Amino acid sequence: MKKNLRFVTLSVFAIALTGCASAPIQLSQMGSFHVGGREVVLSGKPIKEVLFAPGGVPAKVDPNGVYQVEQMYVQYFIPQNPRGSFPLLLWHGGGLSGVTYETTPDGREGWLNYFVKKGWATYNSDAVERGRSGWAMYPDIFKTEPVFLTKENPFERFRIGQGAGSYNKDPSKMKLLPGNQFPPEGYDNFTKQIVPRWTSTDEPTIAAYTELVDKVCPCVLVVHSQSGLFGARVAQARPDKVKALVLVEPAALGPIADAPKLKNVPLLAIYGDYIEQDSRWPTIRGNGIKFYEALKAAGGTADVIDLPRVGIKGNSHMIMMDRNSDQVAGVIQDWLSKKGLYR
Amino acid sequence: MKKNLRFVTLSVFAIALTGCASAPIQLSQMGSFHVGGREVVLSGKPIKEVLFAPGGVPAKVDPNGVYQVEQMYVQYFIPQNPRGSFPLLLWHGGGLSGVTYETTPDGREGWLNYFVKKGWATYNSDAVERGRSGWAMYPDIFKTEPVFLTKENPFERFRIGQGAGSYNKDPSKMKLLPGNQFPPEGYDNFTKQIVPRWTSTDEPTIAAYTELVDKVCPCVLVVHSQSGLFGARVAQARPDKVKALVLVEPAALGPIADAPKLKNVPLLAIYGDYIEQDSRWPTIRGNGIKFYEALKAAGGTADVIDLPRVGIKGNSHMIMMDRNSDQVAGVIQDWLSKKGLYR
Repeated sequence: MKKNLRFVTLSVFAIALTGCASAPIQLSQMGSFHVGGREVVLSGKPIKEVLFAPGGVPAKVDPNGVYQVEQMYVQYFIPQNPRGSFPLLLWHGGGLSGVTYETTPDGREGWLNYFVKKGWATYNSDAVERGRSGWAMYPDIFKTEPVFLTKENPFERFRIGQGAGSYNKDPSKMKLLPGNQFPPEGYDNFTKQIVPRWTSTDEPTIAAYTELVDKVCPCVLVVHSQSGLFGARVAQARPDKVKALVLVEPAALGPIADAPKLKNVPLLAIYGDYIEQDSRWPTIRGNGIKFYEALKAAGGTADVIDLPRVGIKGNSHMIMMDRNSDQVAGVIQDWLSKKGLYR
Repeated sequence: MKKNLRFVTLSVFAIALTGCASAPIQLSQMGSFHVGGREVVLSGKPIKEVLFAPGGVPAKVDPNGVYQVEQMYVQYFIPQNPRGSFPLLLWHGGGLSGVTYETTPDGREGWLNYFVKKGWATYNSDAVERGRSGWAMYPDIFKTEPVFLTKENPFERFRIGQGAGSYNKDPSKMKLLPGNQFPPEGYDNFTKQIVPRWTSTDEPTIAAYTELVDKVCPCVLVVHSQSGLFGARVAQARPDKVKALVLVEPAALGPIADAPKLKNVPLLAIYGDYIEQDSRWPTIRGNGIKFYEALKAAGGTADVIDLPRVGIKGNSHMIMMDRNSDQVAGVIQDWLSKKGLYR
C-alpha cells in the first residue's frame, strides 16, 4: 500500500511539473554529441597544485599543453514515428543556451517538446562558448572579455518591459508593455537561463554549426535572434542541405550582398509586437526587410510574418517563452507543412 | 517515392547514431528547470556599448545592477510507466556537466538512457558554475579563478592511461592501462565535454542540490567523483529524503565525524580498477573506506563494491563511459532492486 502511494505521488508530481497531463513523448532515440572545435597549444605557464575537493588529494595541474576549444554541444530527440521530412534544428539566441527551447520559464512545454511531439527529429544545441559547449581561456584563446547581463537588461531590451526602469523584482510591480505575452511570474526563472557571452566567437560558432549541418542535414533550421546570422551564414554555405530557414526575430543576417545565395532556400521570418515603439527594433527589423527584398530580387522567396498583422498580439523578443508560444509554433508548423516538409 | 526515401534515410541515420536499433523510450514528460541561486548587486562599473551582432544595432550595457548567480540547471525525463519507487538523480563530477550521463563518447547510450528505460524518473543536472547553469563574474562573485584542464590531464589522472606522458592524440599511440575499458577512440569526444571549473563554489553547489532535493525528493542519488561530497553533504542535511545514496568513485565525502548522520540512508560505493597502482586513488579510496567504517560503527549500512573483486575488470574513473558501462549500471540497478526501491 505504501509502495502504491509512492507511485501515485510520483505520477501526480510528474503531472504537476507542467500543470496538466499531456500527450506522451515516444522516442526511438535520444542522446547528445559535440561537433566542431579545434586544439590550441598553450605554453610558458606555471604549474599549479589544485585541491579539487576538500579532504581530497591535491593534484598537479600543468596548464601547459593541448586544449580542446570551440566545440558545440547538441542534444537530439528522434520520435518513434517521424513526420517531419527532415530533422529540425533549434538554434538559440545570444547569452542563452538550448534551454531556450525547453520548458518555458513559467513551466509549460517549450518548442522542443512541441516539435518532437509533432514528429520532428529535433536537434537542440548550445552554441560555442556557452552551456554544455564550455568556453575557452581569455584573452589567450577567446580574444575579448565575456559580457554578463544584469536581470534588468533583457527585460528592457527584449520588449517585455516599457524600456529603461521598467524592471522590478516583484512581478506585480514590473512595468510590462501593455498586453505583453511574456509571463512575468517566469521572468526570474528566465534570468537563470542567461549565461555569459562573448562578442568575438562568431566564426568558430559558424564553423561548428556548419559541421553540425554536414553531420545531420538535409534539415530545417529554426533560429532565434543572434542565430539569425548563424542560420543565414550556414545556409549560404550549404544551400543544398538547408531545406528551410525559419528566422525568429533575427538580430542580424550578414551582408545584404550575400542574400541571393539563399535563393533556393525557402525562408520564413517572424517578428513579434511592439517593434515600432522600440529604440532598436525598427532598425533591426528594417535590416531584415532589406535582406529579404534583396533575396526576392534575386529570384528567391521570403515570407515575412509580423505576428500582430495576422492577429497574434503581445509577443516579446522571447516568442518561444510567451504565453502564446504554442500558437506561434503552430504558425511555423503550418508554414513547414505548406512547403511540403511534413507528412 | 522521393519522400519515402527521405524517411528511410532519417531512420537509418537515427539507428546509425548509436550503432544499433534499441528499445524505444516512452516518456510522459520531459523538460528542464533551474533551482537555487541568489541575487548579487554590483555597482561602480563603467557603462559599455556592445555590438552584439555584426551589422546589428549597438546596445548600451550597464554592468551595474542585479545579477542572478549560482543557480543550477536540471533536465528531467519521466517514463510513461515508472518502475523506480522514487525519482533517480544523476550528479556528475568536477569539470564536467550532465553530459557525463548522456551518450557515451564512443556513441553508445549512457546511464541516463539506461535508467530512464528501466523506468526511473530521472533528473540530470549541471552543477552550479558549469554547463547550462552558467557561471558568475570572478573575482567579483566567484572568489577564485577557473581551472582549465588540458587534454592530457584527465587521461593521466582518471586511470585511463599509464600516468604522466601516456596521452597521445592518436588513439593507437595512447599508452592505456592494460585491459582498460575506456574507449580510446572516444577520448577526443570526452575532452569536448570538459568545462572550466572553480574550486571555490562548493557551498552554493550544495545549496542548489539541497533545493533540488527539497523540490523533487524523496529520491535516489547516483553521484560521481566530486559529487561524492555533494551527495554526502545533502544526504546528511536531508536524510529523510534520500532513500539511497550511490557513490561512484567519490573524490571526497566530507568530515568522517559527519558519517553517522547517514545511518538511515542505504549507501552503495563503487570503485573501478587500477586503484592500487595509482598515485592518488589509494588515498582517495582509503578515505572513503574510513568514512564507511565510521558509518557502520554508528549503526548505518554501507555496501562497498570494488568492481575487480566481483570480476568486473578494467574500469577507469569514468565508469559510465567505459565499454562495460551498462554492466556497471546493472550492478547499481540490482542493488536498488534488492533495497526494495524498484518494482
